[in-house]
Amino acid sequence: MIFRKTAVLGVGLLGASFSLALKKNGLCNHITGFGRSRENLGRAKDLGILDAVAADPESACSDADLILLAAPAGSFVELTRQAAPSIKKGAIVTDVGSVKGDLVSELERLMPPGAHFIGSHPIAGSDRSGIEAAHAELFCDALCIVTPTEQSDPSALKNVMELWSGLGSKVMAMGPARHDRVYAAVSHLPHLIAFAMVNTVSDIDKSYLSYCGQGFKDMTRIAASSPDIWTDISLLNRQNLIEMIALFKENLNRMDAHLKTAEPDALKQEFIRASTARKSIGQD
Amino acid sequence: MIFRKTAVLGVGLLGASFSLALKKNGLCNHITGFGRSRENLGRAKDLGILDAVAADPESACSDADLILLAAPAGSFVELTRQAAPSIKKGAIVTDVGSVKGDLVSELERLMPPGAHFIGSHPIAGSDRSGIEAAHAELFCDALCIVTPTEQSDPSALKNVMELWSGLGSKVMAMGPARHDRVYAAVSHLPHLIAFAMVNTVSDIDKSYLSYCGQGFKDMTRIAASSPDIWTDISLLNRQNLIEMIALFKENLNRMDAHLKTAEPDALKQEFIRASTARKSIGQD
Repeated sequence: MIFRKTAVLGVGLLGASFSLALKKNGLCNHITGFGRSRENLGRAKDLGILDAVAADPESACSDADLILLAAPAGSFVELTRQAAPSIKKGAIVTDVGSVKGDLVSELERLMPPGAHFIGSHPIAGSDRSGIEAAHAELFCDALCIVTPTEQSDPSALKNVMELWSGLGSKVMAMGPARHDRVYAAVSHLPHLIAFAMVNTVSDIDKSYLSYCGQGFKDMTRIAASSPDIWTDISLLNRQNLIEMIALFKENLNRMDAHLKTAEPDALKQEFIRASTARKSIGQD
Repeated sequence: MIFRKTAVLGVGLLGASFSLALKKNGLCNHITGFGRSRENLGRAKDLGILDAVAADPESACSDADLILLAAPAGSFVELTRQAAPSIKKGAIVTDVGSVKGDLVSELERLMPPGAHFIGSHPIAGSDRSGIEAAHAELFCDALCIVTPTEQSDPSALKNVMELWSGLGSKVMAMGPARHDRVYAAVSHLPHLIAFAMVNTVSDIDKSYLSYCGQGFKDMTRIAASSPDIWTDISLLNRQNLIEMIALFKENLNRMDAHLKTAEPDALKQEFIRASTARKSIGQD
């Protein structure tokens, strides 16, 4: 499955890496980019990431048989609305967004007749952003979740799954609602917690940060992630997040109670449960 | 400053690495170890980590001019009590514990006349433990906090600081109370939060763990740490921890409120504050 012409809407770490990966794997040799910053697009073209730069989503998507939404998820609907007039019959539209849910049905509804949206979520983000951090191997050996619905065209779904496999990803399919629950738990909540952790140290005494070790750096690395992207994700998945924050607080309150009553055994049981579960996914 | 004979009480990752580092840097060539597991001590001797194995703390410390407490911090008082009869005049006793506070004064009081306790906390722990993970460079380029008090002997303090410098550490001194506040914020609370984060995912659905990406792995790596060690640390520093859990919950509750009222700007401000602070300590 080879694409003649690809449009990438949003040329940051993921969009640029996707473009580099398509080229490297011989899946597409003409990629047009659109994004908010003309300067960034120009640099991407100079670096050979893009073959052409478009002034708006509509012209970027004109004649494209593959379209990737790679801007912050909060802008997908508006971008797709703008691009829709030029999305041709048979075109496949996918994305790299971390939230699916209602967004998937909304984007499906925006497809012109004969064009197909299939949601994708490559688990390959980073606290680094921008085209300088982009590389062709970003999706290699990474998990990529595709989120078909009852409306999904089977051959478009097959193509999107083969596309990610072609970039080296391990591809799995699950429904948009299940996807959002899973990633609220293993990604969105951890980001919120890491942001709150860093803010807590800042509240206590910012100078304490200079004494931290590798454990703190690892634990809070994701707190350096883009505030724009994470505001979008958090609000798009707010119902799941709100529910899981409550569950997290129950766990924290239980430890807090064991500390207040100084109960080593009860506290240790909580730590053992966490340590065993964490070790089960490998210590890397 | 060279030690003729060293005793290491507790031969795990830190004790064994200390021993290897002493030898590698030519600071001591005879190290006796004591620990709960005879089998572990035998393996440490076979691997050249120890030169001799002792049956109890008292015989381990006999004739030692340097003594390292490297067992879980909750056992320091009992270990020192047992070792005290053989701790000779002029001996320096230090430790690798993550909590200081009252423990330092208690250990100072247990010193026989002419022997000196100076607290140390090398910021070089790991989620891995045991002698298999030990290596001579563990303390190299790592921060090491020494925690003198008004009772500290100036020349013993100087020797302990030079000792850690000799192992390649960047040495800083601060009082035990300040140490415990700093490390409650940048280490003990993050560990508790990471344990609670993993338990929250387990509560929701343990199978979700298999979908996690690098961000979750980094964020929760410290949750694989030893439950024994972290139960000791948490209880020894419980007053600071309880206070800081409350501050953390304020931060989390604020984000929760912004999610509930769906306020992107207020949420983004929290994320910007965290992201800026986290970037200030480097993205590694």
